[in-house]
Amino acid sequence: MAPLLALAPPVTARADALIDNVNGMTLDDKGQVTRFTGLMMNRDGKITYVLKSGERRPKKVDWKIDMGGKTMVPGMIDGHGHVMGLGAQLLRLDLSDTNSLDEALAKIRIYAAANPTKWILGGGWNQERWKLGRFPTAAELDSAVGDRPAWFERVDGHAAWANSRAIAAASVTAATKDPNGGRIERGTGGRPAGVFVDAAMGLVAKTIPGLTPREQNAAFLAAQEKLLSLGVTAAADMGTTQPDWLTYRRMGDLGLLKFRILSYASGVDTALAVAGQGPTPWLYAERLRMGGIKLYDDGALGSRGAWLKADYADAPGNKGLPFLTDDQLLNNMIRGAMDGFQIAVHAIGDRANQQVLDAIEVLSETYKGDRRWRIEHAQIVDPNDLPRFGKFGTIASMQPVHQTSDMHMAEARLGEARLAGAYAWRSMLQNGSRLAFGSDFPVESPDPWAGWAASFTRQDASGQPFGGWRPQEAVTREQGWAGFTTGAAYAGFAEDKIGRIAVGMRADFLILDRDPLLAAPGDLRATKVIETWVGGDRAWQRK
Amino acid sequence: MAPLLALAPPVTARADALIDNVNGMTLDDKGQVTRFTGLMMNRDGKITYVLKSGERRPKKVDWKIDMGGKTMVPGMIDGHGHVMGLGAQLLRLDLSDTNSLDEALAKIRIYAAANPTKWILGGGWNQERWKLGRFPTAAELDSAVGDRPAWFERVDGHAAWANSRAIAAASVTAATKDPNGGRIERGTGGRPAGVFVDAAMGLVAKTIPGLTPREQNAAFLAAQEKLLSLGVTAAADMGTTQPDWLTYRRMGDLGLLKFRILSYASGVDTALAVAGQGPTPWLYAERLRMGGIKLYDDGALGSRGAWLKADYADAPGNKGLPFLTDDQLLNNMIRGAMDGFQIAVHAIGDRANQQVLDAIEVLSETYKGDRRWRIEHAQIVDPNDLPRFGKFGTIASMQPVHQTSDMHMAEARLGEARLAGAYAWRSMLQNGSRLAFGSDFPVESPDPWAGWAASFTRQDASGQPFGGWRPQEAVTREQGWAGFTTGAAYAGFAEDKIGRIAVGMRADFLILDRDPLLAAPGDLRATKVIETWVGGDRAWQRK
Repeated sequence: MAPLLALAPPVTARADALIDNVNGMTLDDKGQVTRFTGLMMNRDGKITYVLKSGERRPKKVDWKIDMGGKTMVPGMIDGHGHVMGLGAQLLRLDLSDTNSLDEALAKIRIYAAANPTKWILGGGWNQERWKLGRFPTAAELDSAVGDRPAWFERVDGHAAWANSRAIAAASVTAATKDPNGGRIERGTGGRPAGVFVDAAMGLVAKTIPGLTPREQNAAFLAAQEKLLSLGVTAAADMGTTQPDWLTYRRMGDLGLLKFRILSYASGVDTALAVAGQGPTPWLYAERLRMGGIKLYDDGALGSRGAWLKADYADAPGNKGLPFLTDDQLLNNMIRGAMDGFQIAVHAIGDRANQQVLDAIEVLSETYKGDRRWRIEHAQIVDPNDLPRFGKFGTIASMQPVHQTSDMHMAEARLGEARLAGAYAWRSMLQNGSRLAFGSDFPVESPDPWAGWAASFTRQDASGQPFGGWRPQEAVTREQGWAGFTTGAAYAGFAEDKIGRIAVGMRADFLILDRDPLLAAPGDLRATKVIETWVGGDRAWQRK
Repeated sequence: MAPLLALAPPVTARADALIDNVNGMTLDDKGQVTRFTGLMMNRDGKITYVLKSGERRPKKVDWKIDMGGKTMVPGMIDGHGHVMGLGAQLLRLDLSDTNSLDEALAKIRIYAAANPTKWILGGGWNQERWKLGRFPTAAELDSAVGDRPAWFERVDGHAAWANSRAIAAASVTAATKDPNGGRIERGTGGRPAGVFVDAAMGLVAKTIPGLTPREQNAAFLAAQEKLLSLGVTAAADMGTTQPDWLTYRRMGDLGLLKFRILSYASGVDTALAVAGQGPTPWLYAERLRMGGIKLYDDGALGSRGAWLKADYADAPGNKGLPFLTDDQLLNNMIRGAMDGFQIAVHAIGDRANQQVLDAIEVLSETYKGDRRWRIEHAQIVDPNDLPRFGKFGTIASMQPVHQTSDMHMAEARLGEARLAGAYAWRSMLQNGSRLAFGSDFPVESPDPWAGWAASFTRQDASGQPFGGWRPQEAVTREQGWAGFTTGAAYAGFAEDKIGRIAVGMRADFLILDRDPLLAAPGDLRATKVIETWVGGDRAWQRK
């Protein structure tokens, strides 16, 4: 193909435009891979034509870009994340690259001096990497931050390090007992030494103030930058609070909302307060919509909060607990469904999944039509319940990286016998359920390439285990891709807008440094996004 | 003039259009009355041309309307109101047309059956009109509403009638003491009889639940309809809460926001939570903006909550009370001003006005530029302080109907000697202050024609007192008009958008049944709006 004249697009590049000379690939509406070499888009940021190799190019366009043969794919959609949670995490000081306590303290000292926040927050430390041979102490942290409370989570999130001000703010003393499932590290006279393990973390964490509106703005922008840099052009925000929503509106009003947020309100009351008698319209050129409600039915597997049908293998007598009774779950789902909100319920354990499936069955008698009931995580499912996901349009919204992160823990919690319906992606598809993939950021990294690679390998970043963990539940590479594109779009009632490169869809696409359909799994994980386009605007570009 | 062909405009009438054959009048940018006979407007709802009598009309327009010589004026702007408060009031049952207790109970019974709300709320009753010779009782109200709490305010707002459920919900019993400034009507054994007077109303009122989002929507639409029907095309919303804001956004998102809201957040925290680091942009084609913050510095005159320099004439030893210390007032004003929010402070008594003027003087050293500090009400001002309103761009935001409603009460509270600076509209202008007029709806009716008539007559609806109350403080008819148009626009940083009929302004105009510049005051009060246009759309039309 003859190289075309490359013109720099205007800053907001929405005009009748030709993006040409790409190694383009997308799934079509049948889930098949199709390839193309260019696309045209209009001033509204919609795709007007997809050009095949050798096809004649239009002579007159407002501007055109020659991508030099680089790979183009549709923007990735994260089917389950927490935008403001990611933002808050990004604002915190990251200690994961520190190799000693002294190095960490020096970094904390500089950060505290530069940040006039009420608390100094961070995470990522690892006393093993520091070769400390013990936990750090409150007194040590006091030497870096003495004037304000400080709180740093350990790299695994299972412990945190407080300074004296934080311990005082939380009113934790020698008299404070260890909570169930947690431990306060103690020094002389039983006084808190500084580190709080597992459930004990909550004693201090609950006193940390929320973000100010200024910090909310900064957090949002940090999260958006992170997501765009990874090629995520849309995300389902699972549990939008009122402050979150007001932040998104501020950003949208100022033209700073660059990616798409499919918002699921944090509970029924938030949905009603924000959106009133039904989903909001799509706002800001289809960059924001509150279309659904997020409910929680149980906790997580790691902390044994997931609600199981039988006892935990490593905790006899404990089945976890439901967050909601049958009636409460039904009542909440009905309150949302009657106003036309989509319902997305967090269910990790097999008993919780059963409870939600039961509720969907009951509700589907009354609330007919295209409801797309979502079960979030659907991690541990009784094989007898798996076929039920194929009914009533139920969607399994799953996170491939949870499987690779959790596999050893899951074996311990459940024992071999109950793994048949664990992270059962292929079974979901075989039973006719629609699958949406996501990352659950910031619980996991929002990197969709890691998730995609895990989806068809069932291996972690180091290629373990060999052959994949329970590889019979792997999906194909194309099915994994669909989970992060067409599947996640469908799960958000957005399949007519995003997820594919096709005429009439929004021009959300990525320019990559490699071909993700040809790359070896390890190479796929290392994919670098070069440009991220949303709605015909170049929203992010690698420097 | 030759009659022109009248074409029906499309439902949303924004196109290049000619509105012709009007008896048009507006104030110009110098405050002078100018007359015209037609206007042109474009698809953005902006005025592109103002046509004089005899001037040649363009031949080609998308559509045109012949108004048959009817009067056209700019839309009226209410400089101080409470949109959702008006809406809530409109949702309540109005008993003001009932002539007997039985008639009222019948009306309540029907209303309660039709409204599945948790409380039944209303107002407007008058036991004198009912010729009852006593207050009604809780038992009587129980006979109409027995299943839910019910609460009806008396026509003057100084008493309310509760049923047994409401009294029980508020936990008021025979043991409950009368609060200061209030009285519980009592029956056998001192038990509450049903009516609560003045400060005692709060005992029950505080337990009334807030509006649900559904009710918020309905309330908003009712308020909007009421305002548009009276020719109010824009209003300063003095104390927008987060739920209020979310309601306005829902309406705007759905294209249901028809008039303009100049929003002043209820306190600094609401402003920051909603708008973040400064005013929001103008939203929905300049129909909504949070540009300022409302603060309260004292209470009201009637309840002796206004903060005076000397004792109340009818309550020796009582000067009222400030809501904020000097430091608190300054701190709040600084927090808002540093982020560029406009500050509007409620100040009724002369001491409160002095305190706010002092604060403005201090702040003006730091916060320079076009700040337009607003004092809301500015009802009782020490004549020595009146000249200070002319400084630092301070705006007096006043309500002519408060004067006609309050005149006798004000004489009682203040005594003759202190009336020199009371409701001192003309003095404000003479001292160089900008004047914005409003109604304080729903405290008073939102009818701007009554307010305009009061502004230059100082007489109430019945023409009392003869010659006007302290007529030396009347403004001219044109100055009164300016208060409800150009003055209120300026006070809201909107003088380049609304308040006049001129090229480049938004096409916000009214068609009236009479000429308000020629009508006798009583006739001006009776002005009927025939059509209300906002931004080039016919937003309301008399049926």
